[in-house]
Amino acid sequence: MSRLRFRISMSLDGFSAGAEQSRKDPLGIGGERLHEWVVSLAAWRAPHGLEGGEVNQSSRVLEEELANIGATIMGRNMFGGHPGPWSSSQPWKGWWGDNPPFHHPVFVLTHHPRPPLVLEGGTTFTFVTDGIAAALELARSSAGGRDIALAGGADIARQYLSAGLVDEMELHVAPILLGKGERLFDGVADLHGLRLVRTVAAPDVIHLKFRGS
Amino acid sequence: MSRLRFRISMSLDGFSAGAEQSRKDPLGIGGERLHEWVVSLAAWRAPHGLEGGEVNQSSRVLEEELANIGATIMGRNMFGGHPGPWSSSQPWKGWWGDNPPFHHPVFVLTHHPRPPLVLEGGTTFTFVTDGIAAALELARSSAGGRDIALAGGADIARQYLSAGLVDEMELHVAPILLGKGERLFDGVADLHGLRLVRTVAAPDVIHLKFRGS
Repeated sequence: MSRLRFRISMSLDGFSAGAEQSRKDPLGIGGERLHEWVVSLAAWRAPHGLEGGEVNQSSRVLEEELANIGATIMGRNMFGGHPGPWSSSQPWKGWWGDNPPFHHPVFVLTHHPRPPLVLEGGTTFTFVTDGIAAALELARSSAGGRDIALAGGADIARQYLSAGLVDEMELHVAPILLGKGERLFDGVADLHGLRLVRTVAAPDVIHLKFRGS
Repeated sequence: MSRLRFRISMSLDGFSAGAEQSRKDPLGIGGERLHEWVVSLAAWRAPHGLEGGEVNQSSRVLEEELANIGATIMGRNMFGGHPGPWSSSQPWKGWWGDNPPFHHPVFVLTHHPRPPLVLEGGTTFTFVTDGIAAALELARSSAGGRDIALAGGADIARQYLSAGLVDEMELHVAPILLGKGERLFDGVADLHGLRLVRTVAAPDVIHLKFRGS
């Protein structure tokens, strides 16, 4: 069966985004420091249409992460656009342009209904208004037996974690402090059986993989 | 020159002690889970007078940590005893019995003066009432050129970290959530140049060593 695989970057002090997130600054103050390890990788740059990049210990972690994914679930904040009902005159199409790097069905959790958005390269965004279990069911039925990526943000991740629905979690721990921001595990006091199964040390990040029993 | 070396165990969600710490429960609720990795080690059990124990990837980390230490600094809470002025009738002598496992001078930061306490095996406790810089100076002058261990607790550690006085930090990250408790880095937003220099992955803990430039 398709497994739900969650991955996120986190600072040493537990923040997965900086303070004062906004549409202009979706990662919050200092939040881009959580992602420096990944944007420098060739394995990340290529699917985002960028040249060059490094190959290091993190490369195989990222390749592993991107492999065998048949669907993605994300929250409304991660998809972006103004909060509240969707604008029909200038509909927000996500951060990723006309040919997003997913190339599979993406399910966006939102409180506001919207018809599906079909973009180039096999990426469709389907907007789900009836909660995390419904989104997971839809993702399962469209993943073609492959796994489902839980892309975040932290709020959605906490809901899936608290419900015990996450089968695998990859934490990319950046060895920095943010001091303020969104705490990944706020209110989550139990990993629901997720256990550390693999650690990869890169110079600028530690990759911790957890798996359910 | 003697370096100030800080070491502490922390949960994945950033807690170095559980909630509701008390004299009866100094680690707080669930706090003992942060230390399971170390109490199982032969290298920890021997100096504490206990038999048996494991040898694994954590053993050399602990041996490294204990090596070349000429003095220790700790906070009043870590030393223990009722808060407030010291009782002269039944003076608290620490948690470690008549022959504590330090075998070198220990400096206890406190607001309440008290004469030094000389115990067996070379351990003396000196009570310092004039702050972290004074304690560090005293420790340096008595460490015989070896390093100084900053034993904690978290409150004292935060003071030294915030003042940029820590030369080395070893974080033992337990891959668990506590949900509540004392946040190690609360109010500390800057590592003052401490950078990740070494990661050791053990099955039940990840050891992250940071060093100043």
